[in-house]
Amino acid sequence: MSIVPTHFGLHLPNWTLHWLSRQPTRFADVEARMRTAIVLARENVQQGTGGPFGAAVFDAKTGRLVAAGVNLVVSHQSAVLHAEVVAIALAGQAIGTHDLAAAGHYELYASTEPCTMCLGASLWSGVRALYCGARDEDARAIGFDEGPKPADWPGELRNRGVQVVQDVLREEAIAVLQDYAARGGRIYNGRMGEGAG
Amino acid sequence: MSIVPTHFGLHLPNWTLHWLSRQPTRFADVEARMRTAIVLARENVQQGTGGPFGAAVFDAKTGRLVAAGVNLVVSHQSAVLHAEVVAIALAGQAIGTHDLAAAGHYELYASTEPCTMCLGASLWSGVRALYCGARDEDARAIGFDEGPKPADWPGELRNRGVQVVQDVLREEAIAVLQDYAARGGRIYNGRMGEGAG
Repeated sequence: MSIVPTHFGLHLPNWTLHWLSRQPTRFADVEARMRTAIVLARENVQQGTGGPFGAAVFDAKTGRLVAAGVNLVVSHQSAVLHAEVVAIALAGQAIGTHDLAAAGHYELYASTEPCTMCLGASLWSGVRALYCGARDEDARAIGFDEGPKPADWPGELRNRGVQVVQDVLREEAIAVLQDYAARGGRIYNGRMGEGAG
Repeated sequence: MSIVPTHFGLHLPNWTLHWLSRQPTRFADVEARMRTAIVLARENVQQGTGGPFGAAVFDAKTGRLVAAGVNLVVSHQSAVLHAEVVAIALAGQAIGTHDLAAAGHYELYASTEPCTMCLGASLWSGVRALYCGARDEDARAIGFDEGPKPADWPGELRNRGVQVVQDVLREEAIAVLQDYAARGGRIYNGRMGEGAG
């Protein structure tokens, strides 16, 4: 007989409860939405709750914040809890479906371009658009690995109906990565490198 | 003020509790380990708890089953809960680290080759080897999309220290996929296709 775990829970850090309670009901434009993802990344670093990555899902029409995510890899002892995966898992709960495309027009904002895993998660989530702050090379510059992605990964997403917009507030997003590196933040690399996101 | 979810729980289906209680303490060889992943896939279909995909993490040296995963996308309203992601999340809990490579030599068995997301998750998990049953094209043959993967994805994993072994009990794994299709199982496609795994 084996004893193996049968359940797993993810919880956003406590600071997010207060943070969420202060958010507006509507985020009017692309910059306001991306700034939310960047603020999540920055707070995650400043509060010491994880890596320098944030993500958020918005209802494109109403501007409503549907779900927020931060990197929880180390705190949850789970390699899969990149910010985008967290935001997508919570968005599914919020909307009540595994396929957001069936329920409306939702957008994912990521403070840094997605790693291989999060590229796939973004595709399966049913978001219609992916907005990115910092670039892959900005994450690599501080030691994170984005994994093996197709050279034209934005094209691959577009071919499957997901719009990709890069370099939104890129400098603000880079500043969070560099702040993390300057603090000596953990580059939680398994052997050859772990994912950003 | 926004109301957004702050936690998310994954639970293996109830049948797994009984199933796990019947498993041996040691799985001696590659075939016994792969058969476990395939049985998980098959039971997930027969019990009606999800898509035709199973995965399992083993301690390579002792043959101990560390974690089991099945596809839970529809039941959990979560695009990210492919079998491999579930198994990796539970393995992290079992071993107490996000990086299995830091704790020993662990292997992931997947009843079908990983989609884009699970390719990345496998890499970040710290498993040293990935064993696959059915091929991408076998999943595509029943309508699932594996997503945009690098052409030589096994080489990409090997370059990062993860051994890849394909076609382990492939025919048995294909049989589960085809049984699912014959039952009219849901190909939970968002627009252009959702992931297998």
